[in-house]
Amino acid sequence: MIIVLKPGTPEEGIQQVVDAVKQFEYEPRLIRGVERTIIACVGDERNHHTLESLIVLPQVESVTPVQKKYKLVSREYHSANTVLDVAGLQIGGGQFHVVAGPCSVESQQQTIETAKTVKLAGATLFRGGAFKPRTSPYDFQGLGKEGLELLRQAREQTGLPIITEVMSPQDVETVAEIADVLQIGARNAQNVPLLAAAAASGKTILLKRGMASLIEEWLLAAEYICVHGNSKVILCERGIRTFEHACRNTLDVSAVALAKQETHLPVFVDPSHAAGRFDMVIPLSRAAVAAGADGLLIEVHPNPAAALSDGGQQLKPRQFAQLMAEIRPFVEAMGKRMAAG
Amino acid sequence: MIIVLKPGTPEEGIQQVVDAVKQFEYEPRLIRGVERTIIACVGDERNHHTLESLIVLPQVESVTPVQKKYKLVSREYHSANTVLDVAGLQIGGGQFHVVAGPCSVESQQQTIETAKTVKLAGATLFRGGAFKPRTSPYDFQGLGKEGLELLRQAREQTGLPIITEVMSPQDVETVAEIADVLQIGARNAQNVPLLAAAAASGKTILLKRGMASLIEEWLLAAEYICVHGNSKVILCERGIRTFEHACRNTLDVSAVALAKQETHLPVFVDPSHAAGRFDMVIPLSRAAVAAGADGLLIEVHPNPAAALSDGGQQLKPRQFAQLMAEIRPFVEAMGKRMAAG
Amino acid sequence: MIIVLKPGTPEEGIQQVVDAVKQFEYEPRLIRGVERTIIACVGDERNHHTLESLIVLPQVESVTPVQKKYKLVSREYHSANTVLDVAGLQIGGGQFHVVAGPCSVESQQQTIETAKTVKLAGATLFRGGAFKPRTSPYDFQGLGKEGLELLRQAREQTGLPIITEVMSPQDVETVAEIADVLQIGARNAQNVPLLAAAAASGKTILLKRGMASLIEEWLLAAEYICVHGNSKVILCERGIRTFEHACRNTLDVSAVALAKQETHLPVFVDPSHAAGRFDMVIPLSRAAVAAGADGLLIEVHPNPAAALSDGGQQLKPRQFAQLMAEIRPFVEAMGKRMAAG
Amino acid sequence: MIIVLKPGTPEEGIQQVVDAVKQFEYEPRLIRGVERTIIACVGDERNHHTLESLIVLPQVESVTPVQKKYKLVSREYHSANTVLDVAGLQIGGGQFHVVAGPCSVESQQQTIETAKTVKLAGATLFRGGAFKPRTSPYDFQGLGKEGLELLRQAREQTGLPIITEVMSPQDVETVAEIADVLQIGARNAQNVPLLAAAAASGKTILLKRGMASLIEEWLLAAEYICVHGNSKVILCERGIRTFEHACRNTLDVSAVALAKQETHLPVFVDPSHAAGRFDMVIPLSRAAVAAGADGLLIEVHPNPAAALSDGGQQLKPRQFAQLMAEIRPFVEAMGKRMAAG
Repeated sequence: MIIVLKPGTPEEGIQQVVDAVKQFEYEPRLIRGVERTIIACVGDERNHHTLESLIVLPQVESVTPVQKKYKLVSREYHSANTVLDVAGLQIGGGQFHVVAGPCSVESQQQTIETAKTVKLAGATLFRGGAFKPRTSPYDFQGLGKEGLELLRQAREQTGLPIITEVMSPQDVETVAEIADVLQIGARNAQNVPLLAAAAASGKTILLKRGMASLIEEWLLAAEYICVHGNSKVILCERGIRTFEHACRNTLDVSAVALAKQETHLPVFVDPSHAAGRFDMVIPLSRAAVAAGADGLLIEVHPNPAAALSDGGQQLKPRQFAQLMAEIRPFVEAMGKRMAAG
Repeated sequence: MIIVLKPGTPEEGIQQVVDAVKQFEYEPRLIRGVERTIIACVGDERNHHTLESLIVLPQVESVTPVQKKYKLVSREYHSANTVLDVAGLQIGGGQFHVVAGPCSVESQQQTIETAKTVKLAGATLFRGGAFKPRTSPYDFQGLGKEGLELLRQAREQTGLPIITEVMSPQDVETVAEIADVLQIGARNAQNVPLLAAAAASGKTILLKRGMASLIEEWLLAAEYICVHGNSKVILCERGIRTFEHACRNTLDVSAVALAKQETHLPVFVDPSHAAGRFDMVIPLSRAAVAAGADGLLIEVHPNPAAALSDGGQQLKPRQFAQLMAEIRPFVEAMGKRMAAG
Repeated sequence: MIIVLKPGTPEEGIQQVVDAVKQFEYEPRLIRGVERTIIACVGDERNHHTLESLIVLPQVESVTPVQKKYKLVSREYHSANTVLDVAGLQIGGGQFHVVAGPCSVESQQQTIETAKTVKLAGATLFRGGAFKPRTSPYDFQGLGKEGLELLRQAREQTGLPIITEVMSPQDVETVAEIADVLQIGARNAQNVPLLAAAAASGKTILLKRGMASLIEEWLLAAEYICVHGNSKVILCERGIRTFEHACRNTLDVSAVALAKQETHLPVFVDPSHAAGRFDMVIPLSRAAVAAGADGLLIEVHPNPAAALSDGGQQLKPRQFAQLMAEIRPFVEAMGKRMAAG
Repeated sequence: MIIVLKPGTPEEGIQQVVDAVKQFEYEPRLIRGVERTIIACVGDERNHHTLESLIVLPQVESVTPVQKKYKLVSREYHSANTVLDVAGLQIGGGQFHVVAGPCSVESQQQTIETAKTVKLAGATLFRGGAFKPRTSPYDFQGLGKEGLELLRQAREQTGLPIITEVMSPQDVETVAEIADVLQIGARNAQNVPLLAAAAASGKTILLKRGMASLIEEWLLAAEYICVHGNSKVILCERGIRTFEHACRNTLDVSAVALAKQETHLPVFVDPSHAAGRFDMVIPLSRAAVAAGADGLLIEVHPNPAAALSDGGQQLKPRQFAQLMAEIRPFVEAMGKRMAAG
């Protein structure tokens, strides 16, 4: 921690801060500057009281941490890329995965048909929402357990591993019976009990960034999962909320590049939610690949105009096939290869 | 719904949209403009398929809802102010309430001492976190059930009703045994299973706005609670996340004024979390009162410099007494009066 | 400056940074921490090369300034409130001023009528746009010099001093002939040549915060004016751009409180532009007063529905009179008094 | 315009709005819905009074424009890509251009050396700031006219056309004597007099998006230039200001894709300012190419650690050469080719 004192702080004010620093078991080092005195506090910031509360002392101008707050997810702790095994697929190595499927599982026919279609086009995992976090209570809330059963059938018929969202600690066990990967959605990006319960399932977890999460907070959410003994985490950028509403969210490609630099975890991108409109999904997918993503989550629906949720952002099968064709040269330019199912 | 078609859409393209609108059981009305044709779709948007998915049709330029998405919380549905009874206190009428207490319940002495202090200064409810949603897994996570017991003792000794946060559906029952008001925190502002479980408890719920929640989304979260049969909701603005980081969040006083105009629910403000720094709490409190708030949530700690969480934003007892004195004339200028415990 | 080195930096890497620091004439002080080495660099950051560019060295993790970047506007430099004299009015002392008038000067009748109306209601300065920065080239661009002449007449007939916007260095002289206060608008908040030219006029300058300006950047814009020899600056908060679009901008009341704390300059608030809607202007005005503002800028139009610009946010004369009545007790609760014209 | 009336508006209230609409020479069409009555107003929204001011009528709930506000820049007006000729280079066609050079022109040696270096690596235009808009008055403000002379020498010695910023209408003529392309910076993105003066020069204009400009506002700024008779505009995305500060700004790749879809103008990207840190420039460059950009602006300095401005975001010559090598396959995957100087 670096504590900067206000100009003109008298000796006894300096000493008071020094004493407080010692009391919290840091070792203070005094630097007297031109206008301001600085106290550098030596000690592990993760094991000690945060000194940030010393800002309440009238002579303190600022308190700034020096260490990064996350550890297990960082490359300082583990420098090589983590490669996860999901039902035999390698995620986070040189293979690029496209997870595809409808926003919501709506019916058996829609589910199975979509799964077959996306597999044919090259998707290696199937996604679909059974438990749906919707902004309005009047919107379709998902089929729940019935939806999970449809996902099970989709896997049975296509062999594609399943990613689906879990919204509540109580549902983790039920969802984990069907899902190969548990998704923690953007609205639950800092839902600590859910992070803990999902971690305890031992499943791979796809962790979406919250729509207002700092990159640091996103990594700390992943750290929660690791601290609970499960390091099988896929980070997923899905756009952040900004003043610009032409797209529903603003895809933050720098977050992808930074997450790859800072952590050893695989990083996926969900351009469908970032855009909120189908006509931006392909260019955002290309950009995500080029920024360094290890995979994509794409919403595909046989008839988006009639979809029960988020129809405006779902691709038709033909558009999805076009996406798969368009991203391939970008994946290869990144030195990766499209995964085979 | 208003559907705007792209310039130059041929008749068959128009007819295709008209047919889709009819299929979803809206009644289409065509308006041919200078450049664009508009289809106004008559029908209750809350009971029907959202036509927003029609944006995927190539001839559609935009689809705009006409109705508001929330209903039970709106003044259109219930025009008079809702006045809630919490342990005999009237909330949302002409009385102004200050809820005060530490960020975290840390020990018996800290808890009881703070409760007595804030009561003496005029607080009418006591707040304190037992289950704490923290950004980092290395930060203090709260005392949990032990903390609830300390809150129970605080009520016993001071008579102040208790507001405390619940983070997980499983904990609702336990927390509801102690708490007079359940708090749903900003990180859980769109945690649908938690909203539903909290609603089912029958308790009054203080619902914080998410740090990236649109006002509409905040009201829809309250609508979730109402739809689950519980209309005892206090809305709480606590600052939103913006580009400005001089304060931790940006207190949105227009949200207070708008929520008062749009809904019949009481609206509180939490300036401590909005500011993230103690020296802004008093001016933000005054502004909140002036914008129309019905109450405040203030963090108070006997020794903020040693607090286990968010020390930098907690007031010392002396500062809290000053706050109570400073806001009184503003409360009165609003035609309200400070509640007596 | 505080330079934090990456963990595991070898001695020669440390020495390289130390040498660079010395080369830029700072005095380096080494602190060896648990994981990281810190170099505190002693020297006046405003007179020396910014060391922030040292971040390009591979062993450097972060470079953080210690000093504040602004000086002349700060209370460290000048602790007492600056009180400005504008045509005999005292601004920034205990008197509270309301500047009122139409968004645009549209005609002689509209201008003179509005000036008389707002004077009658208690406004002490008159505002009106002659040069209008509009988002679209198809919107009304203002009457230009003809508008200035109407403003001159308004002053002649009412005695109210005039605030009006200047958009270009070439126009400063012309506008300064008529205006008592030059307004720099939000779109020009960092227009350095305009800040310099306006400063050179010797007039009082009302400096709006840019819609994406950090508080620090707003104060640095004021610092530009002071550095050019003119310290007659009124800061004006007018809302910032955030994800929330229910109001056009988000009024940042914490910026008002912080600007009052950090600087000695008067701080005004423009709730009309912050809200972008007339029905929020009164509550935002009350909140602005309570946050510590020294004055308000309010848009008033005899017939807002027919206004040539921003009709939706302009008050009718009757609403303006109500505003004046409503804010008075809040002004007095702040220990100030409504200025008399 | 679509006007939505509040539920329960009586006939006379409806008639009042209808009359107002007619008075402003629109043709009103009434649609009576389930809860709300809608008035669709037929007429060219760019030639008529904006009806948005009718929101001040108490019975009006919302007023929504139907037309786009920009025209000349849109593909509706001109569907094919505009290809600009800058000193013989084709911009906006199938060739991809990289503009490179230092943030600031600092000295003859630094300027000439950098120009030669970036030309060797494949840049086809040279950039360098002579007039610098800096946040702080204590920062280096650029060499001004002397800097322009150095840019002239750089062109003479390398043949690279010059892009440099102009900050004030008065300087347009001087800068236009040297520059092949005039840059309007992000801080001047809505500086209307500057847009007009730059347009009048007849030069090609590179128009940066403001850090808080909506895409629509950015296009309207370009429309200003076109309306002033100059359609030689290159749009340039350079990151927007959001809550995330890990990079200085958030590069908005969806804005690139949307601008390409909505307009016929070339779109460039400036990843150096978006990132504010050198280590993100290459991944952001790749993403920009993949999103559809027609060119890049890259800051390069022979010794970034000693740069007089923005050293932290400037690439060393070696890093720039790596960037040129890395982006090539992405440019080709987009079906474009790297331009030859």
